[in-house]
Amino acid sequence: MGERIEADYLIETAFDPRAAAEVMAGEQSSGTFVKVPGETAELKARSAATVDKLTVLKTVGEPGLPGARRPDGAQIQRAHVTLSWPLANLGPSLPNLMATVAGNLFELGQFSGLRLLDIRLPQAFAERYAGPQFGVAGTRELTGVSEGPVIGTIIKPSVGLDAGQTAELVKTLVEAGIDFIKDDELQADGPACPFEDRVGAVMAVINAHAEKTGKKVMYAFNLTGEMDEMRRRHDLVRESGGTCIMASLNSVGLTAFIELARISELPIHAHRNGWGALSRHPLLGWSYVAWQKVWRLAGADHMHVNGLDNKFCEPNESVIASARACLTPMFESAPCLSMPVFSSGQSALQPPETFRQLGSADLIYAAGGGIMGHPDGPAAGIEALRESWHAAMAGIGLSEHAARHPSLAAALKAYG
Amino acid sequence: MGERIEADYLIETAFDPRAAAEVMAGEQSSGTFVKVPGETAELKARSAATVDKLTVLKTVGEPGLPGARRPDGAQIQRAHVTLSWPLANLGPSLPNLMATVAGNLFELGQFSGLRLLDIRLPQAFAERYAGPQFGVAGTRELTGVSEGPVIGTIIKPSVGLDAGQTAELVKTLVEAGIDFIKDDELQADGPACPFEDRVGAVMAVINAHAEKTGKKVMYAFNLTGEMDEMRRRHDLVRESGGTCIMASLNSVGLTAFIELARISELPIHAHRNGWGALSRHPLLGWSYVAWQKVWRLAGADHMHVNGLDNKFCEPNESVIASARACLTPMFESAPCLSMPVFSSGQSALQPPETFRQLGSADLIYAAGGGIMGHPDGPAAGIEALRESWHAAMAGIGLSEHAARHPSLAAALKAYG
Repeated sequence: MGERIEADYLIETAFDPRAAAEVMAGEQSSGTFVKVPGETAELKARSAATVDKLTVLKTVGEPGLPGARRPDGAQIQRAHVTLSWPLANLGPSLPNLMATVAGNLFELGQFSGLRLLDIRLPQAFAERYAGPQFGVAGTRELTGVSEGPVIGTIIKPSVGLDAGQTAELVKTLVEAGIDFIKDDELQADGPACPFEDRVGAVMAVINAHAEKTGKKVMYAFNLTGEMDEMRRRHDLVRESGGTCIMASLNSVGLTAFIELARISELPIHAHRNGWGALSRHPLLGWSYVAWQKVWRLAGADHMHVNGLDNKFCEPNESVIASARACLTPMFESAPCLSMPVFSSGQSALQPPETFRQLGSADLIYAAGGGIMGHPDGPAAGIEALRESWHAAMAGIGLSEHAARHPSLAAALKAYG
Repeated sequence: MGERIEADYLIETAFDPRAAAEVMAGEQSSGTFVKVPGETAELKARSAATVDKLTVLKTVGEPGLPGARRPDGAQIQRAHVTLSWPLANLGPSLPNLMATVAGNLFELGQFSGLRLLDIRLPQAFAERYAGPQFGVAGTRELTGVSEGPVIGTIIKPSVGLDAGQTAELVKTLVEAGIDFIKDDELQADGPACPFEDRVGAVMAVINAHAEKTGKKVMYAFNLTGEMDEMRRRHDLVRESGGTCIMASLNSVGLTAFIELARISELPIHAHRNGWGALSRHPLLGWSYVAWQKVWRLAGADHMHVNGLDNKFCEPNESVIASARACLTPMFESAPCLSMPVFSSGQSALQPPETFRQLGSADLIYAAGGGIMGHPDGPAAGIEALRESWHAAMAGIGLSEHAARHPSLAAALKAYG
C-alpha cells in the first residue's frame, strides 16, 4: 500500500499558490482549519496528502468565481497543482475516491477557481474494477461493424412517441441501414411509453430485420431508474435479444452504476446529461479527462463526448480531448477503453476534421437531422455519413468523393 | 396524470429571453434543434414542456459563463423562468427527474447562465418515495435531546487515526457530554481504519457510556461504498447498537441512495461534499433549495447546510436559505423534513444570529475546534455551545448570559 492516488488541478488564488495548495492537501487528508491535538508528525507522515508539483501559470485581474478571500492588494494567480494521497487512506474504492479528489474543496475560501483536470490511480483500482466489458471490440462484434465508425441515431422526438410509434421509427431506421439507435435520455419508463412495451415493440422490429438480413442493429434502451428496476429491465432487454442498455450517469450515480456494470451482460451506453453543471465554468468542477476515467473504470462501454461544431457551448478542442481520453489506456494491464459517442448537430460535414484531429474511427457517430433530414431520405443520410467517413479515413477530399457518391453530394449541399 | 412537474431557473441570454426559454422547454421535452417529422401538434400538446412564467430581471454587460452564442450587438439579459412538464413524460421517478430538470440544458448555446433554483413535484412523488424515516423527531428521540440543537462534532484529524485511536477520541467526547459525532467524509473503510474495526471500537465506548449514564450518543458511521458494502455496513451498525449511518451523496449517487434509504433502519446523515462543483458559480448548476428536495424525498434524515461565518465561500444568506428549505414541508401529506446540519468554523459565537435568522433550533450544530479548542477542554466547549444556544432561544444577550456561565465566557474570549 505504498502507492498513491494523484490528482491535477487548475487553481486560482489570491494567496501564495503553494500555501493555498497546502490548504487543499490538508483539508482533503489529515489537516483541518485549526491544528488539532491528534495531528501528530507520525500521523501526517502516514496519512497526509502532499503537494507534489506546482506550476504558476499567470496573474489575472479579476477573480473567476465570487466569494473567495483576497488579502488587501493581493494579486490573483492561476496555477497547475498536483496533489497525492496514500492509497491506505481510502483503499481502491471509486465512491470514496470522489470525496477525496472532488469533495469539500471547490468551496475553499482560498480559491476563486478550482477545477479537477486529471486523476491517476494505483494498480489496485484496476484489480478491483473490471472496466468496460465490451468497449470498442465488443461493440464492433455485436454490431457487425468491423471498421469505421458505428453509425447511430437517437429517437426523436425525445419523448411523446408511444411504444408502437417508436417501433415504426425504428423500422424506418433499420431498413435505411443504421447500425445503432438510442433512446433519448428523457425517455425511460414514463407511463406514456413504458419500458417493457418499448422493448417488446422495438425488439420485434430489430429481431425480424436481423432474421431477414443477418444484421442485428444495436439499440441502447434507457433503463435509468431504481436498482431493482434496472436489474429487471436489463434482464428483459437481454431476454428479448437486445444488445445494449443505456444509463444516465448523473441520474443513477456511481454506486448504482458500479452495481449495474457488475450484473450487466450487455454493453452499457453511458449518457452524461447534466455534465454541463459540473464542467461549464472553466475554473470550476471537473474536466472530462478526469471524469470519464471514473466511469470507464466502473464499466462504461460507450461515453458521450459531444461533437465538432456542436450546438452546445463546448469548443472543438475540448470535444477531441474528451474522445482521445476515452481511447487512451488507463492501466497497462487494463486499458479500460470506452467507445466515444459523437453527437449533437453532426452531419456528413464533420467526419474529415473529426478523423484528422482524433486519428481514430473507433467511435459511435450519431446524427439526428443529419440522417432524417437528408433530402433523399434516411437511407441516403446514413450512406452519406458512411461515405464521408470513408473519404476521411482514405484521405480523399470530401468534394472529390462526393462527385462519385450522390448521397454525399446531396448531404454536403443540404447541410453545408 | 394531469399533474405537472415545475422547475424555476435563473437564466442569462443574449437572445430574446422568451425564445431562449422556449428552446430549453423544447430540448427538455419533445423538441429538438430541428423540427422532426414525428413532432406533430397532437404530440406536442401531450408531451411538450411549457414556459409558464418569465420575469426579466436586468441587463448585464458581460456574459457570466463563456461559450454562449451572442448575436451581433445583442444585449445580455437575466431572467427568472418557470418550466413545467407533464408527469406522464417520466412518471414519479427521482432518477429520471434529473435528466428532465437538470440534464442537457446547462450547455445550451443560447445561455451564458443557467441555474436550477427550485422544483415542485406532483403528489405522485410523495406516494412513491418515503422521505426521511427519522428526520427531526426521530433524531431527537434517538439522541434524547428533546429541545435545542443536537450538539455534534466531527472526528479530527479526518483520516489517520486507526480504530482504537478513533474510539479513544470518542471516549473523550462522550464523557464531555456530546450528543452526536460523525466520521469525516474522507474516512470510510480505508485499510488504515477499516469500517468494521471502527464500528466495534467506537460502539464499545458508546454502549458502555450509555449503560452507565443512560445517554446513547449518536455516531454517524460513514458507510459510503458499493451497494453490498453499504448493506453489510448498515446491518453491522444496527447490530452493534449504533443509531446512525452516513453517506456522501455525490459519491453514492441517487439510485443507490434511494436503495439505501429503503433498507435502512437507522437515520441517514447525508453529506454533501462535492456540492461546490454544482453550486459555486451563481449562474450555473443547482441552488441548494432545489437540490435538497431530491435527497429529502429519497430519504435523507440530516442534510449539511454549512454554517454562519463559515470558512468556505458561501454567504450567510445562502446558509440560512438552505436550512430553512430543509425545514419547509414538501407536501401537505408528507412534509419530508430533514434536520439541517450546521458546521464549518462554528463556535459559541454564532448561535444567537443563527437562531435569529432561522427561527428554529431543530438542527444539528457541529463544531470541531469550537469544542476541542476550548481553553478549559471539550466538556467546557460543549457546555459553552449549549449555553450559547440557551441564551439565543431565551432571548438573553450572550455577554449577559456569559456573566453567569464561565464556560461561555471563556469561549467568547477564545473564539471572539
